[in-house]
Amino acid sequence: MFNEDVYVRRRSQLRKQVTSGLIILPGNDESPRNFADNPYPFRQDSCFSYFFGIDQPGLVGIIDADDGTECLFGDDPVLNEIVWTGPQLPLQEKCRQVGVAQTMATDRLVPGLEKAQRQGRTIHLLPQYRTDTILKLQRLLGLDSPQSVDQFISEILIRAVVAQRSVKVPEEIEQLESAVTITAEMHLTAMQRTHPGLYEYQVVGALEGVALSRGAHPAFPTLFTIHGETLHNHYHGNLMQAGDIVVNDSGAESRLHYAGDITRTIPVCGTFTSRQKDIYTIVLNAQEKAIAAIQPGIEFRNIHRMACVSIMEGLNELGLVKGEANEAVNAGVHTLFFPCGLGHMLGLDVHDMEGLGEDFVGYTDTIQRNHQFGWRSLRLAKALEPGYVVTVEPGIYFIPALIDRCKAEGKYAPYVDYQRVESYRDFGGIRIEDDVLVTEMGPRILGPPIPKTIDEVEAACSY
Amino acid sequence: MFNEDVYVRRRSQLRKQVTSGLIILPGNDESPRNFADNPYPFRQDSCFSYFFGIDQPGLVGIIDADDGTECLFGDDPVLNEIVWTGPQLPLQEKCRQVGVAQTMATDRLVPGLEKAQRQGRTIHLLPQYRTDTILKLQRLLGLDSPQSVDQFISEILIRAVVAQRSVKVPEEIEQLESAVTITAEMHLTAMQRTHPGLYEYQVVGALEGVALSRGAHPAFPTLFTIHGETLHNHYHGNLMQAGDIVVNDSGAESRLHYAGDITRTIPVCGTFTSRQKDIYTIVLNAQEKAIAAIQPGIEFRNIHRMACVSIMEGLNELGLVKGEANEAVNAGVHTLFFPCGLGHMLGLDVHDMEGLGEDFVGYTDTIQRNHQFGWRSLRLAKALEPGYVVTVEPGIYFIPALIDRCKAEGKYAPYVDYQRVESYRDFGGIRIEDDVLVTEMGPRILGPPIPKTIDEVEAACSY
Repeated sequence: MFNEDVYVRRRSQLRKQVTSGLIILPGNDESPRNFADNPYPFRQDSCFSYFFGIDQPGLVGIIDADDGTECLFGDDPVLNEIVWTGPQLPLQEKCRQVGVAQTMATDRLVPGLEKAQRQGRTIHLLPQYRTDTILKLQRLLGLDSPQSVDQFISEILIRAVVAQRSVKVPEEIEQLESAVTITAEMHLTAMQRTHPGLYEYQVVGALEGVALSRGAHPAFPTLFTIHGETLHNHYHGNLMQAGDIVVNDSGAESRLHYAGDITRTIPVCGTFTSRQKDIYTIVLNAQEKAIAAIQPGIEFRNIHRMACVSIMEGLNELGLVKGEANEAVNAGVHTLFFPCGLGHMLGLDVHDMEGLGEDFVGYTDTIQRNHQFGWRSLRLAKALEPGYVVTVEPGIYFIPALIDRCKAEGKYAPYVDYQRVESYRDFGGIRIEDDVLVTEMGPRILGPPIPKTIDEVEAACSY
Repeated sequence: MFNEDVYVRRRSQLRKQVTSGLIILPGNDESPRNFADNPYPFRQDSCFSYFFGIDQPGLVGIIDADDGTECLFGDDPVLNEIVWTGPQLPLQEKCRQVGVAQTMATDRLVPGLEKAQRQGRTIHLLPQYRTDTILKLQRLLGLDSPQSVDQFISEILIRAVVAQRSVKVPEEIEQLESAVTITAEMHLTAMQRTHPGLYEYQVVGALEGVALSRGAHPAFPTLFTIHGETLHNHYHGNLMQAGDIVVNDSGAESRLHYAGDITRTIPVCGTFTSRQKDIYTIVLNAQEKAIAAIQPGIEFRNIHRMACVSIMEGLNELGLVKGEANEAVNAGVHTLFFPCGLGHMLGLDVHDMEGLGEDFVGYTDTIQRNHQFGWRSLRLAKALEPGYVVTVEPGIYFIPALIDRCKAEGKYAPYVDYQRVESYRDFGGIRIEDDVLVTEMGPRILGPPIPKTIDEVEAACSY
């Protein structure tokens, strides 16, 4: 974990912003896979981790915003359990390491919360994403139904957490750099291992094995597919053949659970065809332009737009679309090829703080989500600030279902040469993604260089 | 999945045994890791998988035990979603592949269950281990609280499922063989990769990478530790040094989610010390005797006892214990060194059907659990039948907390030379485990041979 000062500072800042009431931050429990005692690898809740740092199931943190007291509720194993678990650092000692003075047994929590409710104190909760945590909170707060937990979700708490977690301090940048460093190894391994005649899962095993061998876990389900045009595709059962390109969107978590999130597109036989190079070059240009535009104050939606225009210009040169690029983007034509957003915040979560509500993270009272197809998938729109870490991940995707639908509806007809687009129907998709820190001096790409130009990728593949 | 006949036969047999009422078998949903849209790798519920075979979240299977109708409830992606997910086989087609004639949209389920409840029909549920499934059932059955779901847990259904899943048919044996084959590769990799100066996670990454590269997942959290004496130990952060031994208890799932579960104990520097060889030999003898004793009709608790006696005899020769071995076991002395059970059923779950209740799986009305320390951890006691697959995994563990407690209490004093035991205080633990099919002709160890004797393990380590 970080030095205790980090956690003390974070909690103190949170308390000041929330100003009053009781903040409850439940940690995660074990998550059962196929029976209770066969859990998935434990992952602490990101907010709990951010404010309390302890990587152990079964804890609940309380911060009293009025008087500043803090307490962690949890139970040490009893002697009988130590026979099975081995000697454990007492919870009190772990609490000391993160600057929390008070530790109490879990059964002290219900009376404490009863008292607070009797006194009419405000209770602040964050939105929850695990049903076991919701049921636990229902029990702790003595509520009738799981749904009633929602009444304690506190916008002031959400806003305070988002404000704080959005700006990464140097020790967090270090964690993110370390995550991207492991992620870079995963991507190099993938480039070296990808060959015609292998199944996708054979490479996925190798690249996830790299993460695990560094004591890390994948930060999200690895996307590694010859069907890169399918954006939500976690199937790894395809046979890779010469001529295919593979989209590899994968990343590892650092020791303290900060996420790396990198995408590279790999030619299965080691070299791109000229048609693949054309599209690759358009995506790469869009990505490099977007990264270069990153600086404090610029709205990310404008960088997204810049990438869309760049893609339209490139596709225009190839004769897939026509007309002025800005007008085409106004008409939404880019969404036929790039129906998703340019990127998102990155931190303890790969879509950082998505569980708290994307609109709190990526939008403001004045910069509201645009609900048109394509734009509505943009997770981040607001102005960038120094310390933000964002992904920049444009792509071009030939999605048969989408092409068919738009063509049938006669959509974008003045702009799209559907006959030419049809000839790319089996192309697949290409995406290129880096993780970028916003600094006063502009963008800083995190981690070591990862092969990205056509020459670099081909060189890494033939390694 | 298996041929549709397999599923048709399984469901028909289940229906006949349950005789009447509505059997509800909910499949699993995605399980969120750090936010809703960042799930753990999907794992279908084992019972759903056993009876319906479809590896997809969000399904509920219904079997009407009275009239034999069967229906799968679930939703196909709409066109809008296909843009993101790619083309999907319609649910109806998947159902056809497992012999289910009827498919309905999820929203048809509530009215159907309301009607059944109005008609006073019995509803049969299995015990549930995921809170999201419990909340889903609460909603589907229109209940007041998650706890009320329990009232539908049906012993007749549990017994019918356990009876059927306990006896593995040839196509299941094939799956188990395939799981152990991948598991064998994991163990060979671990033996080859383990060296002084590495951290445990470096080898864990390599061996789990092997499973993933075969399109498989670990069947349970890998236990790979120089502290093999700590039985519930999933920490992988220790530096391995010459002289250490590592307990590697790990396994992969087959394509259809049958589990392999193998343990080997590896000398970090490639060769065992003579002291380690002594203990290893005792464990190996106990394991081989136990396996040899496996045959239909023998109670597994007696095989457990046989292994305990064998361990006592071995420790007696080393001078750690004294007295007649059978008497020592009667007095519970073995539990100081071997506080857990000899093995468990193996199948779709690594502790097969543990979620349905261990007593239903491993005990009978007449063979009841012995609640003494050590014996109470025995998961399987009843008589073996052809088609059962069990693990055989004796071990010797020097657990400081347990030694201290027993010594302080003067426990087993006539039998234990505590001074000599103290000299093994830092020894760690040794376990050897194989997966064994009970046949009419006796035991059959599943999978390819995995280095097990001292010579074999040392040879594999110096590969």
